[in-house]
Amino acid sequence: MSSTLSIKRFFSRFGAVVLMCTSFTIAFIKPVAAQTLNKQQQAGMAALKKTTLNSDLSYELVESLTTEVGPRMMGTPGDAKSIVWAVDKMKSLGFDKVWTEEVTSTQWFRGEAKARITSPYPHNIVAIALGGSVGTGEQGITAQVAQFDSLADLKAAKPGSLKGKIAFVSYKMSRHIAGKGYGAAVGTRVNGASIAAEKGAVALIMRSVGTDSNRVAHTGVMRYKEGVNKIPAAAISNPDADLLLNQLKRGKPVSFQLTLTASIEAEQVIKSANVIGEITGSESPEEIVAIGAHLDSWDVGTGALDDGIGVAMVMAAAHHISKLDNRPKRTIRVILYAAEEVGLLGAKQYMIDHKDEVKNHVMGAEWDFGVGKIYEMTPRVGPKGLKAVDDLAKYLAPLGVKSSGKNNGRASSDMGLLTDAGMPSMRLSADGSHYFDYHHTENDTLDKVSPEDLKQNTAVYTLFAYFAAQASVDFRK
Amino acid sequence: MSSTLSIKRFFSRFGAVVLMCTSFTIAFIKPVAAQTLNKQQQAGMAALKKTTLNSDLSYELVESLTTEVGPRMMGTPGDAKSIVWAVDKMKSLGFDKVWTEEVTSTQWFRGEAKARITSPYPHNIVAIALGGSVGTGEQGITAQVAQFDSLADLKAAKPGSLKGKIAFVSYKMSRHIAGKGYGAAVGTRVNGASIAAEKGAVALIMRSVGTDSNRVAHTGVMRYKEGVNKIPAAAISNPDADLLLNQLKRGKPVSFQLTLTASIEAEQVIKSANVIGEITGSESPEEIVAIGAHLDSWDVGTGALDDGIGVAMVMAAAHHISKLDNRPKRTIRVILYAAEEVGLLGAKQYMIDHKDEVKNHVMGAEWDFGVGKIYEMTPRVGPKGLKAVDDLAKYLAPLGVKSSGKNNGRASSDMGLLTDAGMPSMRLSADGSHYFDYHHTENDTLDKVSPEDLKQNTAVYTLFAYFAAQASVDFRK
Repeated sequence: MSSTLSIKRFFSRFGAVVLMCTSFTIAFIKPVAAQTLNKQQQAGMAALKKTTLNSDLSYELVESLTTEVGPRMMGTPGDAKSIVWAVDKMKSLGFDKVWTEEVTSTQWFRGEAKARITSPYPHNIVAIALGGSVGTGEQGITAQVAQFDSLADLKAAKPGSLKGKIAFVSYKMSRHIAGKGYGAAVGTRVNGASIAAEKGAVALIMRSVGTDSNRVAHTGVMRYKEGVNKIPAAAISNPDADLLLNQLKRGKPVSFQLTLTASIEAEQVIKSANVIGEITGSESPEEIVAIGAHLDSWDVGTGALDDGIGVAMVMAAAHHISKLDNRPKRTIRVILYAAEEVGLLGAKQYMIDHKDEVKNHVMGAEWDFGVGKIYEMTPRVGPKGLKAVDDLAKYLAPLGVKSSGKNNGRASSDMGLLTDAGMPSMRLSADGSHYFDYHHTENDTLDKVSPEDLKQNTAVYTLFAYFAAQASVDFRK
Repeated sequence: MSSTLSIKRFFSRFGAVVLMCTSFTIAFIKPVAAQTLNKQQQAGMAALKKTTLNSDLSYELVESLTTEVGPRMMGTPGDAKSIVWAVDKMKSLGFDKVWTEEVTSTQWFRGEAKARITSPYPHNIVAIALGGSVGTGEQGITAQVAQFDSLADLKAAKPGSLKGKIAFVSYKMSRHIAGKGYGAAVGTRVNGASIAAEKGAVALIMRSVGTDSNRVAHTGVMRYKEGVNKIPAAAISNPDADLLLNQLKRGKPVSFQLTLTASIEAEQVIKSANVIGEITGSESPEEIVAIGAHLDSWDVGTGALDDGIGVAMVMAAAHHISKLDNRPKRTIRVILYAAEEVGLLGAKQYMIDHKDEVKNHVMGAEWDFGVGKIYEMTPRVGPKGLKAVDDLAKYLAPLGVKSSGKNNGRASSDMGLLTDAGMPSMRLSADGSHYFDYHHTENDTLDKVSPEDLKQNTAVYTLFAYFAAQASVDFRK
């Protein structure tokens, strides 16, 4: 208890700025009495818990999105359909305000991917273009494979040593509840092509960033370094990467043919939109509790997990809150971001469009990771907000959510930009052990969604949003 | 004890014919002393157990087959390569005799499959032609979908009621350790097209016969009924079947486009071969203990499970036995059947080629199911063989193999034809809980093979074959 008190004294002396930049571990104290919410608001929490745990609304929403819209990569017909879908749904769900904000980009076409080991033992290989890759031309590229265990090994290759070769990074992502294997694997996808090109490679192939054993390759965004030759980049499936390694270990040269008909149309501007809906606050409508997800998906699955369930649960959360007798004090803003997959374009646009309003975002959380139940909460709030967070934890504990004991919870993906700009945030961590089995593949489909888990997810987001909109505390302070 | 004895008296009175046609349950007795093998032979069993559990040979063989040959559907270049591979491997493994026996058939080309829901909500669908299906023509077939929960429901449809429609059977296979869900699901694949055609349908689509949740469709052989219009038939993946059902349940007509460029070239004769190798018996070389698997696979994966591991373990078993100081009394014959997948063609040819020799097959077992450890043994032997089987069970029990207590063990797939012709047989049941996740798909690849399980599998087959080749009993009697 004493150590906790001394930490609290420390924060009250050095203030919120220090707190929000640190990853210091904090042992939350049990509050003597719950004072963040009044009796009526506590009754609201109880009612919302009951409603959300017994409602199929969020499942119905993700079923509708994946069945009636499907894949929705920026610039595709599905993207346009999803915007109409989201606006219509928000209106029918009783949101007080619904609007869109334009997001633009240049066009990229995936085209087709064909890959094949041509010698010593010919095999067809399952491959997919990385998002943003240039194509190979119709005739493809055939070259000898130079294999690297990791991106670090590729970086260490001598300049010119890959001249005329296809670089192959075989690093395998590991499984983890919080997706911790992703960080170590994704660098190759984002930066590998330019690093390989600097060594003279004519193309990059990589083992998919994924934890599955399916012959399905994982796409995802990549970037070219300015001034470096743009070479085609593709991911191959895990079993195909194993096969390629087994051929390579025989010591003979392995020849690989890659054909990507992808193309970048730099002059062609495509449009999408952030879709925003609000439940207007009754006392401080200018203060915003933001809950978000991204509406776009990759073009290969139906984006059920990434990020259909997020879209569904934040829409359902706002709807359930809107059905109470009274609006909460603060405004609840549901932000469905455009074009997250292709580089957080919707989030970046939001930061421009709402530059002057960022300070009014009093709390926010985004869902963009996980496939199971939420097991942990990590705030990022000012010292005065910590007590309220402890109080919230009491409501979420019966749902299986534990406090991480840290106060460094950056919001997920898009909304991380708001955290970085000073918005108090909550990271609600869901079980992601199997998330990367499906991530950015054809297999991201509705059957992977557990209706029971989704009820818990929705309950947590709903209680969080309502609590933040009613709390008698300023989380920023 | 007494009930067991009375069963034994029953069998000695009514003989082997009755026994081998019944599925009567038998409680095996514990033999007072193991007399089936002599001391030297018991030492042989001990040596083989030690060798097989410490050898990587069978894994190396399946790694070699899948890496250097890959898919090997009858009539494809991979099929021809696999025959050369098997002959070479058997020779290098020290088999006493190695030869091939020609198997012929007509040519079928898979071509490409494209499928799409065109309305009310357009979606691309993952589909694959069933083996033997006719094509749709390049322009494809577009028609309204008529859905049935099961093959029985399709059969119950009124004649003419499906005129101009695509029949869709959505029956979902269940998971079971012994693959018991397969029987209930596979009828649609084999016979569904002609049943649908009799009702007027223009094509059949079906939910894949598989237990996975991947967007990968399962192929497998189908047959047309004589005199009925041949319509194209395809399987769609489990998630795609779910999506189609979700569109149908909205009550609007669902339109589906199917394009299969498959074709049957009835006049084009293709050749394959059964590959046979022997370890020649030292005392009764004319008596054959047969261990088998099929060498062919479908053209989509690398046939690691179906039936690469079977090929590997029976080859390894014979090799390990050949390395003992003395040859067993009887001949051990390894039969690698051709063209199992397209209709047991190699097995049927074997029955013709070896018609006069069937009576000399004193015991046999085939591996063509499972992906895990062998957990159960079920013989099908004459009454005198039962005691020897009890003795064998003592050797296999420490490896985790239990007696099923039945005496109706038909050998798997190809070799079932020999069982039906009177060959005493052993069914060695492996865990197949996850077998149908990969069966007949691109995902049947080496990474699904557990090196540890394969050691146990190989140990069991090796001990079984050696025991049968040495046993001082005639299993037929």
